[in-house]
Amino acid sequence: MVNENNEVYDTIIIGAGPAGMTAAIYAIRYKLKTLIISKDTGGIANLAHKIENWPGIVSITGPELMENFKNHVEALGVKIVQEEAVKISQGFEVTTSESNKFKAKTLILALGTVRRKLNIPGEDEFLGKGVSYCCTCDGPMFRNKIVCVVGGSNSAVMGALLLADYASRVYLIYRKDALKADPALTDSLKTNKKIEVIFNSEITKIVGTKFVEKIVLNNGKELPMQGIFIEIGGIPSTALAKQLGIDLDDHSSIIVDDNMRTNVKGVFAAGDITNTPLDQIVTACADGAKAAYAAFNHLKK
Amino acid sequence: MVNENNEVYDTIIIGAGPAGMTAAIYAIRYKLKTLIISKDTGGIANLAHKIENWPGIVSITGPELMENFKNHVEALGVKIVQEEAVKISQGFEVTTSESNKFKAKTLILALGTVRRKLNIPGEDEFLGKGVSYCCTCDGPMFRNKIVCVVGGSNSAVMGALLLADYASRVYLIYRKDALKADPALTDSLKTNKKIEVIFNSEITKIVGTKFVEKIVLNNGKELPMQGIFIEIGGIPSTALAKQLGIDLDDHSSIIVDDNMRTNVKGVFAAGDITNTPLDQIVTACADGAKAAYAAFNHLKK
Repeated sequence: MVNENNEVYDTIIIGAGPAGMTAAIYAIRYKLKTLIISKDTGGIANLAHKIENWPGIVSITGPELMENFKNHVEALGVKIVQEEAVKISQGFEVTTSESNKFKAKTLILALGTVRRKLNIPGEDEFLGKGVSYCCTCDGPMFRNKIVCVVGGSNSAVMGALLLADYASRVYLIYRKDALKADPALTDSLKTNKKIEVIFNSEITKIVGTKFVEKIVLNNGKELPMQGIFIEIGGIPSTALAKQLGIDLDDHSSIIVDDNMRTNVKGVFAAGDITNTPLDQIVTACADGAKAAYAAFNHLKK
Repeated sequence: MVNENNEVYDTIIIGAGPAGMTAAIYAIRYKLKTLIISKDTGGIANLAHKIENWPGIVSITGPELMENFKNHVEALGVKIVQEEAVKISQGFEVTTSESNKFKAKTLILALGTVRRKLNIPGEDEFLGKGVSYCCTCDGPMFRNKIVCVVGGSNSAVMGALLLADYASRVYLIYRKDALKADPALTDSLKTNKKIEVIFNSEITKIVGTKFVEKIVLNNGKELPMQGIFIEIGGIPSTALAKQLGIDLDDHSSIIVDDNMRTNVKGVFAAGDITNTPLDQIVTACADGAKAAYAAFNHLKK
């Protein structure tokens, strides 16, 4: 696809997770000529096995909720270009992985975060051969196997609970001495007999031949292991933001004001990519709504 | 009902609109002993005829969406005391309209706003006899009648559009020379032949015998009229906040930080009652989630 007619969009939203899709829903409400560029839809919300805190729905899977969002966006006539945005120049012009170019008067960056890696021997080698960054996606393949989750956050604990539905044994390996997950989740962990938490420990090496066979901990101990799920958080996807000279905080998150404005005029950001507190679907959505409103106000001037 | 066992809640949420109910959903996630006190549920979201920007649902009525929220809250086991909170003392102790008293370690104020009045002759006299503050609630009673909406905001324009489904003629009366509603809405207005916008005008008097019969404008002109819908925004319900010495801004909104903390330790606020930008259901929900998280963090210390 080549953008031959050289349209200029009022706003291009980069990213199609909860923040980006809500920004689109609001941008249409403000009658902005809107385009989404994103290689996929749903973002890391797709990795949520079970969502019980999206208001109005007692329980739903991440992929189901994101499908509802996508249907909503599409019902409003917003086009999603399923390519990766690889370059942004001032003006603004966005170039995609397929070398297509799109012009816009404003941008909303809603690229979320990418998964953090352990950076240990065997991690890359055994990716897809026992090493995974998504319990929801890959858990069912480890039926009756021994697995571990690395991390201490909500997503790590939720991952361990999910894996216990499949695996014969689940270790939760965390480098600190107390989990940082919500109490509701850690309580569920304690009553699950398949799960054992190993505190104050890190994996130093992943060993195997064709598939993962064991892990080595920093105390030298070895554990037979068939699946390793790495759930140690994400890094904001700010490569494009850097091209525009957007200010980031110490965690590499985009610094936004109350209206989701970055330091670059006409560029807004929303969701996990920003420094707004509490990264949840509902807070990302609110960010997206505010960013669209701010883009609208910027264009009115 | 008397709270005889003298329980102390981790948090009492005052108000049960989108902000208050989402705060409850999150408070339960953080395993807080939670109570909601609110004379009704849904808040002014109940007045929305049609909601098309709640992510994941193409179109829903306000009452339906709020019913979903209420079902969610009740599924989590949160009790809603359907009384009005009339007094709060430090500590904290909340006294209701029924003289019941409830104690809590933290408070989340989510009382929203109350409708603003015109304060003109006839307004109080004809309340329920032609004067209304809710197009959604009372519109259907004005089938084939002549009505007007006062205001220029989204809710005023939406009200006019809704009333055009029932009434024979709809005037939108606004004191300024341009509406402040979203372009998508004002466009719909322009193509609706039943609606006429009267700019730069205010009603000075409402006249009738048993029911409203006509209005007088500030230019002296009189218009025959059977229904008057006043949609000129709301005033934050901050009477309780004032009892606690909570700082308000120039619009009487509660000043909160990024984590929904007020200047009084242990007291948080969320939704339309606060000074956070863009009063929408999704932003109120995000506020509620953040307030619950802040209450949890406050209690952990």
